[in-house]
Amino acid sequence: MYYFEDFRVGDAFDLGNTTVTEEEIVAFAQHYDPQPFHVSPELAQKSPFGGLIASGWQTIALFMRLFVDVILNNAISLASPGADEIRWLKPVCPGDILNARLTVVESTPSRSRPEMGIVRFKWEMLNQADERVLTLQSTHFLGRKPQE
Amino acid sequence: MYYFEDFRVGDAFDLGNTTVTEEEIVAFAQHYDPQPFHVSPELAQKSPFGGLIASGWQTIALFMRLFVDVILNNAISLASPGADEIRWLKPVCPGDILNARLTVVESTPSRSRPEMGIVRFKWEMLNQADERVLTLQSTHFLGRKPQE
Repeated sequence: MYYFEDFRVGDAFDLGNTTVTEEEIVAFAQHYDPQPFHVSPELAQKSPFGGLIASGWQTIALFMRLFVDVILNNAISLASPGADEIRWLKPVCPGDILNARLTVVESTPSRSRPEMGIVRFKWEMLNQADERVLTLQSTHFLGRKPQE
Repeated sequence: MYYFEDFRVGDAFDLGNTTVTEEEIVAFAQHYDPQPFHVSPELAQKSPFGGLIASGWQTIALFMRLFVDVILNNAISLASPGADEIRWLKPVCPGDILNARLTVVESTPSRSRPEMGIVRFKWEMLNQADERVLTLQSTHFLGRKPQE
């Protein structure tokens, strides 16, 4: 179980690896981001990317799944007010092996709500060539450790 | 067809309405954001939200779909380097009617690539009570109008 107190500035977490298939890229894109280079391998070949790439929002969602499995579902996650500085640095292609890393960049007890603290995380996702494909920062309200 | 030249600072676009069902909220969350208040109506009732709410990333994806249908698939969309200042202002619940609005906040010809320009959009999503549920800004590389 993680509490607000477990996230100190500079702490880093390896959230593990994930991957994405052509079918998953197309399924997400058909529903949410039907640009030609996300929904059609044929049209994608003629695009500047030269092949099918994942929606940037799906790349974030793939990271989010690891973040939830490893951290948020093992904490008192009370909501997120927002995120900043999303950068899609490289395309994500079918079969890429993506490693998710999380670093604590800010940690502040809430003044108005003593039961929680505010933690700002930096996200970094790297592909199998050790290139960063995604970075962003997200803010989370997390429950504090119960007093003894 | 939209070109870079069609997006002047202050221009506003109504992208139309969308909605989301309980089944779609749960399906997205099971795949990408399995926090209890996104995947289980029963657990969500006991959460601070008092009922099932959509993943914030799904709310963005719902907006993105309208943005792609109305604008990006009718433009030369060359990629997006990033997004900033995501704010999830209110929960999104099953059946909410969500209106998506887009405003041009910056428009800059590319110095290094004369075939494109850089446009920064502000996104605003409002629910049926006219409350803003989501705001963010995204940056896009868009093709320029061919010279006569």
